[in-house]
Parts: sequence; structure tokens; C-alpha cells
Amino acid sequence: MTSPVADANKLYLDDLSVGQTFTTGTHRIEPGAIKDFAAEFDPQWFHLDEDDAKDSFFGGLAASGWHTAGITMRLVVETLPLAGGVIGAGGELQWPAPTRPGDILQATIEVLELTPSKSRPERGMGVVRITTRNQRDEVVQTFRVKVLLWRRPA
Amino acid sequence: MTSPVADANKLYLDDLSVGQTFTTGTHRIEPGAIKDFAAEFDPQWFHLDEDDAKDSFFGGLAASGWHTAGITMRLVVETLPLAGGVIGAGGELQWPAPTRPGDILQATIEVLELTPSKSRPERGMGVVRITTRNQRDEVVQTFRVKVLLWRRPA
Repeated sequence: MTSPVADANKLYLDDLSVGQTFTTGTHRIEPGAIKDFAAEFDPQWFHLDEDDAKDSFFGGLAASGWHTAGITMRLVVETLPLAGGVIGAGGELQWPAPTRPGDILQATIEVLELTPSKSRPERGMGVVRITTRNQRDEVVQTFRVKVLLWRRPA
Repeated sequence: MTSPVADANKLYLDDLSVGQTFTTGTHRIEPGAIKDFAAEFDPQWFHLDEDDAKDSFFGGLAASGWHTAGITMRLVVETLPLAGGVIGAGGELQWPAPTRPGDILQATIEVLELTPSKSRPERGMGVVRITTRNQRDEVVQTFRVKVLLWRRPA
């Protein structure tokens, strides 16, 4: 594709700096949403039913890690107006603690690396660490991810 | 929790071996499902609208990587009857190519490492590589993930 159209309201590689941080809004996860997500993508008893979940590793209803990941993505997309969109190539994903019904999630985004492309002068890559916490300040997910960035058009 | 109840139909650490592979069923991803998922978790134009998506890095409608991840999880859960459930702690996630409308996804699971716990004799950890391919045999996702395993009760 060609570069995204110049847009003063969007963030290009040139607008970011290593060490910069962003904080997202919050999202409260309801028990019904945990079960609906699980029924579609992760149908295991500890994500589907409070009582059944008592007899599991989690000891009670827990959200699928992929649900935590989806909520985090939404919070990031709503917060970080990257030119060309928020497009990740992949990275290191960890779930140190489960997300529970009623938890309120919020993420921070830290810019770790910024690398202009040598072969494609209009592009670059960034590495960011996205840390998702609940209302008790426990980390429920970390994602150190490579993201596509564009250079600000001249 | 206590160990899962002994169940001859479930897989314990003792039933697995390094190098073992499993192949999941298949799942066809429809354009409507791509848009519904995106509206909830990844509301960006290249996941929401065919026409708008033409003017993006993807050059056409593409599924959110998190949607590919969710479908993969479902395929894995339906295939791998781990005692205690399929519970991942995290790992390295990559999306080498986007998932497109109408793609048919299938995953393979490869057992890479098996490590009984030294401190908890009833438990262990495994490392598996889950590779998701489309009907053209292109890899759309890899996830090298640490999973919780249980020892077969005596």
C-alpha cells in the first residue's frame, strides 16, 4: 500500500519517542461477557460456569486469556491513534493472573524501540510493551509487541 | 486446587511425549464474523468494512489477529483433552499473514518440552507450538506456549 494520508491527528514514527507512555481508558468485564466469549472461543468449564469453575485450577470463574487480550486490544485502539492503524506482527504474551468477573481493566503502553526501515523510507517498526492491570493493580497480561509504523509525510 | 480426578479419557503429562503432534478440526471464518469480532474488540476500518479496508496495509478485509487467536484456541480445546483443561501461561505469538474472509483455518499442536515439577509432584509444565494454517497452507499464526499439565494419579 501507499503511506497513509498525512493527518495531523494521527501518530507517526516521528511523533513517538522511546520511553513515552500512554494510559488507556478502563473496561469492566461482566460475568455474562466472560461466558459468552468462552462459549465461542474457549469453551472450558472454568470460563463458562461459576459452580463448575470452583473445581478447577482457577478455583472460580475466570475469563479466557484471549478475552483479556481482546479487551486490551480495544482499549489500545481507542487510545493510540497510530497513522495506518494499530497493526501488530506478534510478540511475547503473558498472563500472570486471571481476569475475574467484575474486574476493571486498564492498560499502559510503553514505547521501547523505534526503528526506521532502511529499505522502505516511508515505514518503520516500533516495539511497545502493553501491560494490562485490574483494579487491584495486579498485572493480568503483558504483551511486548512489534508494531508497524509510518513516517510522517513531508 | 487438588489434582483433577483420574480420567482415562484425558491426557496427563505421562501420556504425552516430546515430538508428538495433534491436528485440530477446521473452522471457516465468514466476513460477518470478522466484522462482529472487530466491532467488539478491534474496531479498525480494515477489520470492519471491505471497501474501507482496500485503503489499508492489508489491501482488503482482514480478521483481527485476536480473532485468529480465538478460533485457534477453540480448535485446540476441541482437540486436546488435557486433564484439568487447556491452560496457557503465555508465550511467543506471531501473525505472519492475515486471515481473510472465507479462509478455512486448521491448527497443529507439537509437543516441544515436558517438565515435571520438582516442588509439586502432582504437576508439570509443557511447551507446545501451535501453528495455524489456512486452506492455502499459509501460516497465519504461531504460538509457542507454556501449558499447565498434571501427572496421572496413581
